[in-house]
Amino acid sequence: MMIDPKTVPASVSYRVLVGSIVPRPIAFVSTTSSSGVNNLAPFSFFNAVCGDPPVVLFCPVWRDPMKDTLANVRATREFVVNIVSEGIVEQMNLCAAEFPAHVDEFAMSGLTPVPSDVVRAPRVAESPVSMECRLLQVVEISAQPMGGNIVIGEVVRFHVDDRVIAGDAGAFRIDAEKLRAVGRMSGYDYTRTRDRFSLVRP
Amino acid sequence: MMIDPKTVPASVSYRVLVGSIVPRPIAFVSTTSSSGVNNLAPFSFFNAVCGDPPVVLFCPVWRDPMKDTLANVRATREFVVNIVSEGIVEQMNLCAAEFPAHVDEFAMSGLTPVPSDVVRAPRVAESPVSMECRLLQVVEISAQPMGGNIVIGEVVRFHVDDRVIAGDAGAFRIDAEKLRAVGRMSGYDYTRTRDRFSLVRP
Repeated sequence: MMIDPKTVPASVSYRVLVGSIVPRPIAFVSTTSSSGVNNLAPFSFFNAVCGDPPVVLFCPVWRDPMKDTLANVRATREFVVNIVSEGIVEQMNLCAAEFPAHVDEFAMSGLTPVPSDVVRAPRVAESPVSMECRLLQVVEISAQPMGGNIVIGEVVRFHVDDRVIAGDAGAFRIDAEKLRAVGRMSGYDYTRTRDRFSLVRP
Repeated sequence: MMIDPKTVPASVSYRVLVGSIVPRPIAFVSTTSSSGVNNLAPFSFFNAVCGDPPVVLFCPVWRDPMKDTLANVRATREFVVNIVSEGIVEQMNLCAAEFPAHVDEFAMSGLTPVPSDVVRAPRVAESPVSMECRLLQVVEISAQPMGGNIVIGEVVRFHVDDRVIAGDAGAFRIDAEKLRAVGRMSGYDYTRTRDRFSLVRP
């Protein structure tokens, strides 16, 4: 089947994207508003960009008024990306609903805010890896329903739970079996990362 | 453990990023050079951006000279993203090595190039979903080892194998069980997407 996006509702294009670009990593993003209210929300249009400097991006969908996370990032130019392991996936799901700006999703979900080292937004204590980020740039793609933005940030601090670091004596690395990260599929679906295999690069 | 990226080798930051931002979807990107040589290479710093217009992005690492894919995208302003299912993961891995620009990875891997509808680069016949894209923008992050770029493109055609479309009578969607997409972990590791679970949004 061939689809010209200009000839179908945008919801069809959206469903092909979220159904085929899988599994997606999840950025559980914490921010603080100018007035000091903490916010926590998951985004699966998320990935790393490069290692030097360490840069990540995530893509909040367009909303009017804009989503709290994007409003806070624009106002403070800071955010924290927290990684979602199997142990906190239920709490992450609680934060996936849209709440009024005055709601603190840390309090609502029962997750613990820990002060960050250099940014104002707290990180999630229960997350195995957190990345304090400073905003580099927001690329606006389109300001309409199902439109979106690309938020690009530089990691200024990594926090890694010692329990997810590989035990072998070689180079520092994170052990996927200990991390137990969860990926996003489409609809209400997620995938664990336990069903792994290796392919040696030729 | 807390890490200030400015105080460690970039390889440490890179390993935290690729070890914790998992599972990553894989863009198997086909391009054609100005002189007509086809290229095919996988990228896991990849995701959707938004649905209207349908936009995707992927992040080639910096190389001098630049990677064939990026050189071709810059020259032609077109590319095709092909999704990687379990059935073509070995061929995808063959294309992950770096080859000279004159090598056609379709011929090398045994995958079949099919003419696209509106872009010059062919799509991969064996891929369950392909997206013909026109370049919107390249955002350069840093031009140095472990630096990178963000390639942002608008999808102008989707190709979806009828065999991965869900059989139910509801809205059009892709069935993850039929798609069997593969995600990227760190090192030589990949993950299947069969170990799924659902969480209904509150």
